[in-house]
Amino acid sequence: MDFFDVVTTQRAIRRLRPDPIPDVVLRQIMDAAVCAPSGGNRQGWSFVVIRDTATRARLGALYREAWGELMNVPYYRDAAAAPPDSPAGKLVASARHLAEHLGEAPVLVLACIAADGAPTLTTGASIYPAVQNILLAARALGIGSCLTTIHRFRDAQVKELLGIPAGVETTALIPLGYPLRKFGRPPRRPVAEVAFADRWGRALAGA
Amino acid sequence: MDFFDVVTTQRAIRRLRPDPIPDVVLRQIMDAAVCAPSGGNRQGWSFVVIRDTATRARLGALYREAWGELMNVPYYRDAAAAPPDSPAGKLVASARHLAEHLGEAPVLVLACIAADGAPTLTTGASIYPAVQNILLAARALGIGSCLTTIHRFRDAQVKELLGIPAGVETTALIPLGYPLRKFGRPPRRPVAEVAFADRWGRALAGA
Repeated sequence: MDFFDVVTTQRAIRRLRPDPIPDVVLRQIMDAAVCAPSGGNRQGWSFVVIRDTATRARLGALYREAWGELMNVPYYRDAAAAPPDSPAGKLVASARHLAEHLGEAPVLVLACIAADGAPTLTTGASIYPAVQNILLAARALGIGSCLTTIHRFRDAQVKELLGIPAGVETTALIPLGYPLRKFGRPPRRPVAEVAFADRWGRALAGA
Repeated sequence: MDFFDVVTTQRAIRRLRPDPIPDVVLRQIMDAAVCAPSGGNRQGWSFVVIRDTATRARLGALYREAWGELMNVPYYRDAAAAPPDSPAGKLVASARHLAEHLGEAPVLVLACIAADGAPTLTTGASIYPAVQNILLAARALGIGSCLTTIHRFRDAQVKELLGIPAGVETTALIPLGYPLRKFGRPPRRPVAEVAFADRWGRALAGA
């Protein structure tokens, strides 16, 4: 697929078929992940690729609990009260579906990063580019995915379940599966609203 | 360009020509950026696109100072002592070139994210996917780039120079320009070394 067709039609797909993903396809997705940059080319990343049924079911249960916690966060609680056909309402309905079915996705990828001491904002600069490569490569191969982080509400249990050692942070849990709905341009603010010329607040001509 | 040709040949390009980047090309790069995911689809991102000569020169001077600070960090100090033809030695030579010439890149993009309170690791999940889209889209269009974060050693000065308001974090400074050297597969550990099956430490068959 053409690069710009991929990057402009990658969107969160939260309704997934349970059909398995062939090894060769998964391998190509993970190869894209490791081509990403990381600070000082340290490559402190690790990816736990979960296909075992019982492990997925347990992660699904933990994720459902995490969703319950998220609904206590004001931003999401407000979104859950939005009309069902509003953008916020649709997002919450889709995210709730995922919360109830995460463990049924045929593959879950937990992206991890080694962190000396407390991780910071820029620790993310060494792992989320690789996560984005996973989402894009999946889309290029017709596989739905989304970037989730709420497993961190049950981080200790997730780490214990998967044997994540000390000094390693979990950064994203990515469900992968063939999509029940279509890819397409995601709902986003236009460039003109978010890009500035030379200084904050100055309009970018032509954007 | 084919998606996998882009994603597997995007690598840090730190030696850039000063030739300008056409507006239409820049526009396509920024459009890729805003297609990225963000937590709750909040899109709390902003991008300051710097082409003004004096502003680039001042950012270049601040970046050079930041480089000096980085060389006090043990990991990078050790890398700077590596043989010039070793991977670490080559990386440092390339990064030093960038430190001395950042302000000569025709475009610098400062990626920012709104953060309520102190940013965390997962704050990065809402901006570094967009940053990765910038790097990939640039590569698809034949433009070199790299992800840098060391401007944060001079964060207050950078924010003042560009008028970044309170409650907004700077996350990456990305130089863009036509490359002096070739694109190609970046030096990375293979998937088999960094991906596990179902549980930390368990080999992923076929990886």
